Amino acid sequence: MKIGIIGTGAVGGYYGALLASNGFDVHFLMNTDFEHVAKHGLWVESKNGDINLTTVNAYNNAKDMPSCDLVIVALKTTHNYLLKDMLPALVKPDGVVVVLQNGLGVEADVSEILPAATVVGGLCFLCSNKVGPGHIRHLDYGSVRIGEHSGDDRPAGITEKLKCVADIFGRASIPVHMTDNLPLARWEKLVWNMPFNGLSVILDADTRQLIDFPPSFNLLRDIMAEVINGACHCGMEIDSQFADLMLTATKQMVAYNPSMKLDFDAGRPLEINKIYKRPIHAAQAAGFEMRLSRAITAQLGFMDMRNCGRSGRSL
Amino acid sequence: MKIGIIGTGAVGGYYGALLASNGFDVHFLMNTDFEHVAKHGLWVESKNGDINLTTVNAYNNAKDMPSCDLVIVALKTTHNYLLKDMLPALVKPDGVVVVLQNGLGVEADVSEILPAATVVGGLCFLCSNKVGPGHIRHLDYGSVRIGEHSGDDRPAGITEKLKCVADIFGRASIPVHMTDNLPLARWEKLVWNMPFNGLSVILDADTRQLIDFPPSFNLLRDIMAEVINGACHCGMEIDSQFADLMLTATKQMVAYNPSMKLDFDAGRPLEINKIYKRPIHAAQAAGFEMRLSRAITAQLGFMDMRNCGRSGRSL
Repeated sequence: MKIGIIGTGAVGGYYGALLASNGFDVHFLMNTDFEHVAKHGLWVESKNGDINLTTVNAYNNAKDMPSCDLVIVALKTTHNYLLKDMLPALVKPDGVVVVLQNGLGVEADVSEILPAATVVGGLCFLCSNKVGPGHIRHLDYGSVRIGEHSGDDRPAGITEKLKCVADIFGRASIPVHMTDNLPLARWEKLVWNMPFNGLSVILDADTRQLIDFPPSFNLLRDIMAEVINGACHCGMEIDSQFADLMLTATKQMVAYNPSMKLDFDAGRPLEINKIYKRPIHAAQAAGFEMRLSRAITAQLGFMDMRNCGRSGRSL
Repeated sequence: MKIGIIGTGAVGGYYGALLASNGFDVHFLMNTDFEHVAKHGLWVESKNGDINLTTVNAYNNAKDMPSCDLVIVALKTTHNYLLKDMLPALVKPDGVVVVLQNGLGVEADVSEILPAATVVGGLCFLCSNKVGPGHIRHLDYGSVRIGEHSGDDRPAGITEKLKCVADIFGRASIPVHMTDNLPLARWEKLVWNMPFNGLSVILDADTRQLIDFPPSFNLLRDIMAEVINGACHCGMEIDSQFADLMLTATKQMVAYNPSMKLDFDAGRPLEINKIYKRPIHAAQAAGFEMRLSRAITAQLGFMDMRNCGRSGRSL
């Protein structure tokens, strides 16, 4: 069985290294790090023990990769436009694609390209950064919640293919939980992502700073309540107490920079479309205006535009 | 007739210099600039012609000032706590206080201290900066809209005292317009101040940058609509088209940094209480939640707290 990793960064590099070091045949697609990794390998520093992959199946072009039984998509969603050229040849006809991305509609991006493929969504609870070429620092956590994509907003249940993915992850020492309701799991994660990602960028602050100042704490809670309300309009029942549970859990974590803050500070484009615009549109289509989230989206759009000019990238 | 100016900055220095250069007996209270102005005078650079006051009645303590017939309050509202020690001895028993400040409840601050005094609110349409000790640069505009404070939210009408103030301003070449409805005028100004002041600080942007990017333009308009809605709940009828008029007018102005942006960049405390919290509370008491404005207020509170640490001032 061959496993392909699209995007060897903080997420794809970490999980790919765990799979490879546990005996799986893993093939890594990467961009800027290709030459370094081909020469020096991949290094994951981790509190669970470092992983040093000295020989890595590294590629800088998807067309050079073998067809894979399991393909893990770990790109930033801002690069999903690349998938239509990468996926068709890479995924075997009966292959499975696991999408380890944030936001709403990320499985649909894959399904549109490969209508017959099994698509599994994965929600990572992971603190990990890429700190240099081929060098990933794993800080904490690491579990993945996976669920199969049904093609629409209905739960797909616990399928045989999903159990296969869970088994593979489990054999690589990746803590894995299965959900029968991926759309609900996606919205639940948005309850955290929409307040914390946006405000961390706009206010240049980590989770602890946002939580410790009462007005920003209240704003986090207001946005969470709005996301829960949006989810409910879309048919995903999330208890209103879920917000306080999330806030309490985050308060007990170490100070943490959400992924969008890391992207912003590195001059990378922000995942505004999948983390903000998609859920806002979904709620709007169901008759609910996420007014606070729309305001945050506008602010992020402004900052992204300016950051783009600073970093010299195109929007 | 004696005129007292409390706060000889971009606003008080400008209007005070116009009054003094037109023959009025003006007494200026100032803080850090006192020694400079006492020695070198007050200099207003203006496109309408410079004003050089070589001899200035300058004070650094209100207790040294003579009793005045007309007292102009041109402090930042963040310093209104000082008024209770300054005003009682400064204002003659039948004197008039003109409050040239932004936000809601600024006249009430004076009325609480001097219940018998005539209090007039003034809304300045002025682009002016203090650029050095005793040195004010007048960039554009300069008119003042004045209305008498009735003690509550009812219009006071065009009173004799109001006409007196208008006459004095007019004789000093200050374009002046009288309003019979000060509370309405205050809310109308908030329709501009609440979106532009806050977003200019949060997004580090001038009026032009906020207007030119469609998502921030839409957010400006959403906040304006919310302020108009808040005003209407408080009994102030503002037409919904007022927002577009304001936006069009601002688009035609030169790029401009709102006063709160200038305060933030200079490390000064932000006028969050009068420009945001008061109107939000007023609308809330009338049954309307200004949710976007509350979010902006929380963000400003966070940035003000951090700015306070940077500038070494106390919150």
